Amino acid sequence: MSRPTVVEYVVDRLSKLGISECFGVPGDYAFPFDDAIASHGSVDWLGCSNELNAAYAADGYARIRGASMLCTTYAVGELSALNGVMGAKAERSAIFHLVGMSSMRHQLRRKIVHHTLGDGVFQNFINISAQAACAHTVLTPDNCVYELERVIAAAMANRQPAYIIVAEDLATRPIMGPTVEQYPEPKSDQDELKAAVDAALAKIADAKTGCVLPAFTVSRFGFQAELTALIEASGLPFATTAMDKAVLSEAHPQYIGGYAGKYSAPNVVEAVEAGDVVINAGGVLFTDISTAAFANTIDPAKIITIGIDATHIDGQVFSNVRMRDMFVALAREVKKFDGVDLQRPAPAELVGGSDDPITADSLYPRYQRFFAANDVVVAETGTSATGVGGLLLPDGAAYHNQTLWGSIGWATGAALGTAVADRSRRTVLITGEGSHQLTANEIGNYGRHGVKPAIFVLNNEGYAVERSLEDYPDWVYNDLAPWDYHTLPAALGCKDWFTAKVKTNGELEAAMNKAQQADTASYIEIVGGKHDYPEGLKIVGSRTSEMYGI
Amino acid sequence: MSRPTVVEYVVDRLSKLGISECFGVPGDYAFPFDDAIASHGSVDWLGCSNELNAAYAADGYARIRGASMLCTTYAVGELSALNGVMGAKAERSAIFHLVGMSSMRHQLRRKIVHHTLGDGVFQNFINISAQAACAHTVLTPDNCVYELERVIAAAMANRQPAYIIVAEDLATRPIMGPTVEQYPEPKSDQDELKAAVDAALAKIADAKTGCVLPAFTVSRFGFQAELTALIEASGLPFATTAMDKAVLSEAHPQYIGGYAGKYSAPNVVEAVEAGDVVINAGGVLFTDISTAAFANTIDPAKIITIGIDATHIDGQVFSNVRMRDMFVALAREVKKFDGVDLQRPAPAELVGGSDDPITADSLYPRYQRFFAANDVVVAETGTSATGVGGLLLPDGAAYHNQTLWGSIGWATGAALGTAVADRSRRTVLITGEGSHQLTANEIGNYGRHGVKPAIFVLNNEGYAVERSLEDYPDWVYNDLAPWDYHTLPAALGCKDWFTAKVKTNGELEAAMNKAQQADTASYIEIVGGKHDYPEGLKIVGSRTSEMYGI
Repeated sequence: MSRPTVVEYVVDRLSKLGISECFGVPGDYAFPFDDAIASHGSVDWLGCSNELNAAYAADGYARIRGASMLCTTYAVGELSALNGVMGAKAERSAIFHLVGMSSMRHQLRRKIVHHTLGDGVFQNFINISAQAACAHTVLTPDNCVYELERVIAAAMANRQPAYIIVAEDLATRPIMGPTVEQYPEPKSDQDELKAAVDAALAKIADAKTGCVLPAFTVSRFGFQAELTALIEASGLPFATTAMDKAVLSEAHPQYIGGYAGKYSAPNVVEAVEAGDVVINAGGVLFTDISTAAFANTIDPAKIITIGIDATHIDGQVFSNVRMRDMFVALAREVKKFDGVDLQRPAPAELVGGSDDPITADSLYPRYQRFFAANDVVVAETGTSATGVGGLLLPDGAAYHNQTLWGSIGWATGAALGTAVADRSRRTVLITGEGSHQLTANEIGNYGRHGVKPAIFVLNNEGYAVERSLEDYPDWVYNDLAPWDYHTLPAALGCKDWFTAKVKTNGELEAAMNKAQQADTASYIEIVGGKHDYPEGLKIVGSRTSEMYGI
Repeated sequence: MSRPTVVEYVVDRLSKLGISECFGVPGDYAFPFDDAIASHGSVDWLGCSNELNAAYAADGYARIRGASMLCTTYAVGELSALNGVMGAKAERSAIFHLVGMSSMRHQLRRKIVHHTLGDGVFQNFINISAQAACAHTVLTPDNCVYELERVIAAAMANRQPAYIIVAEDLATRPIMGPTVEQYPEPKSDQDELKAAVDAALAKIADAKTGCVLPAFTVSRFGFQAELTALIEASGLPFATTAMDKAVLSEAHPQYIGGYAGKYSAPNVVEAVEAGDVVINAGGVLFTDISTAAFANTIDPAKIITIGIDATHIDGQVFSNVRMRDMFVALAREVKKFDGVDLQRPAPAELVGGSDDPITADSLYPRYQRFFAANDVVVAETGTSATGVGGLLLPDGAAYHNQTLWGSIGWATGAALGTAVADRSRRTVLITGEGSHQLTANEIGNYGRHGVKPAIFVLNNEGYAVERSLEDYPDWVYNDLAPWDYHTLPAALGCKDWFTAKVKTNGELEAAMNKAQQADTASYIEIVGGKHDYPEGLKIVGSRTSEMYGI
């Protein structure tokens, strides 16, 4: 039996993680990887318009599948992808970033070749790309098998990117050395785990009320069932910050709503801030954005923080305790809380007449009505996430946003990834024009790769989120080129899509109805008001000194 | 008199370098810079669709103006720009990259805020961005004045980027400390300069024939007059590699053509490779691309290499000798060569009938006829640069390409920069669809910012340059989304442009005529053959083992 080449081995090994597509942009130093992907029987090459878009798509895909593949070329390709991969590190998506570089023969001769600084120096960009990864490796035929297991183990244990680079000539050589067993998942230290469980149970024992705050990490690691079991065993309500929205189904009877500090619904503020115990399940991050600019007040002494690999209680840190083990152990022993308030969140109310112009108040409730069970909703940072964040999602609907990293343009790229990752679910992309312009050149690839999302683009004459944060909202830099958005899909090759441009609530509803029935993707341009912001943005806009510390 | 704030000072000081526009994408941590730019009397904010495009535009602008400004926000913005700024480092454009970060109050409190990894760590991206610069600084009100002089001096002495970052709260504080004199340009060591000149003259003294190879650096530093004087004093012919094309006017009577090793015109091969002396004027880089995959053979003993700040002759290095001083000193003392061959390059011949489909052979000569004196021709890496590289440009026409860094998509961004940098000259952008798709979302800003380039996009069913380099050209990854290119400008808001889609030589000529007469920008989609490559690509395609060392 002939041995596979380095690149064949890598692609095949990664495919066994459940990855069946690779996003990327081809390039000559990466041809060996490109060829290995294109010729692999169960991995499809999904070309993107540029590397940043590809990284965003890989991020979206990994959020659904647990891991993804991204392939770019040396220097120009990998550096263009950097921001997208760094965002995946921040928000925990396991992207395997495959990069090809010049042959070792050329490197050893210090040849002056393209995609270098012209100084005969190579591998100087590895230390840049590696900073967006939790593990990285420079592959050779000798080290390929065990190095790959090492970086796979690290990426999956952290749900963060791994960076894998190989020289063009070594890439196509057969692997050498013995086979290696797959590295086991990290296991909890049993003594620490027991101590953490005991400490948590002790804190819970005295509590009469409380709340669970599930973190985004729960969906990244796929521990929804384990956490749901804990929540049901405890009988406690759960609430989510913007970053964690819909990590468990919002149709669950114990879901009480979104938490954004004092601006949350009164029963949520009561449950989270006035309860006796808060279980931070997975490591919720109380970021500026998810707390409405630090409007949260939770006594740290009440919080049990179950992180990915450590649990914090009362200033004690229990190390090497895995999140899943805590969920399972606690679910077995947790007491059932009696008489806790499980008031469900109210759906947003439909306002605005049919002939009225679309406003922030009238728009978002109509999205809520549009959403269907199991949709994957991808909302862009800024206006869109603020508006959609306040809606109640139907059963099984997932929600993705980049609340922490907040790179605008992400959603238009990421939604390609979510749509490809699960073609049985509908992806709904909700974005604003300012963000969309960064990455809208990816739209053609939605059509080419045959996915059928519903896309909504808010055309409101500029960067509304920036206007909302400024004393003087009309700085020239908040203006944009006046795109004719609804004509864009056709220009980019998506000739059969349903497209519309809507200005009134009635037009919006009609277009939404058509999109529901269309057997194609749909792309709806919504004309909004230049200074009309969702409530959440107005709140943050009133708290800029808390937001920025100035 | 009230003191300016840090950001006001920076923008005003940079404007004195002749920079009157700033490219960028606004963002909240960078609002102080954004505000200072938008409110400066002689600097205009030129918003771009995304940061990579903005970096490319800043690169193009700096190639014309000598320096440029780019403004992005912390982390997400600056990292997205990284590849563009790194390319400017490789190919020497002095981009001043302005970045805003979180307030020092938030940094000292280790707040968990957007655009970070959520770990309370700040300034960890500075060491990434700084690698794309030749100098960087973290500004405070105290250090602002002298730090700025330091990084300006470095950027201008090297014509490479400088990275300037400031915390949001310090950004708007008044500068402190004394004023500082502008740092002088670096001066040559007079002893080394004299030794270098003597060594060069000695080598020239024995030579009967020779050639000058002007480098791209000559135009970056603006030393065209000094080098032209040296060339005219010597009477020597000059030739240029792809990277250096048109650095001096190709209408000059001593210009003999392009040099790409043995594939050059016979008289150029003779002059460069068989002459007695070669003056490498500015540090020509004999890269893989500019030498048709290392098809160059020049005896190193014949070469006088006048680098930016060092001269190399016969293995000796004369340090701290500035390029301009060498040009001036040599021009004074160089002998006049007699009887050297000054055969001018032949213009490309017009082939192909009016009703014939457009081919590589018929297309490029028609570009040559289209070009006018003083045009700024921006050609994309790959097919476009290979085809245009072989043409003879009219008097005063400049040519820009990214031959070394070779980041596809660059040209579509950079041409916005060249067009803005000198509105009295016409920018002609020549690109292929594979590259164009990376950055075509910038087209709307050409219209918004009122420039009127002529844009030509070759639609040839994929990445032709990649096909030309591969044994099997039809790998799936060489395919692209089927954009309807000529409809793109209107979709992106450029409603009044002249646009056309052409398939025959006659249609191309008619469209070119209209573009010549249009008072608007023009955008012409050219349908080409999937496997029809310019001659230069075929040559490189036949030399892949030399190209890649595999």
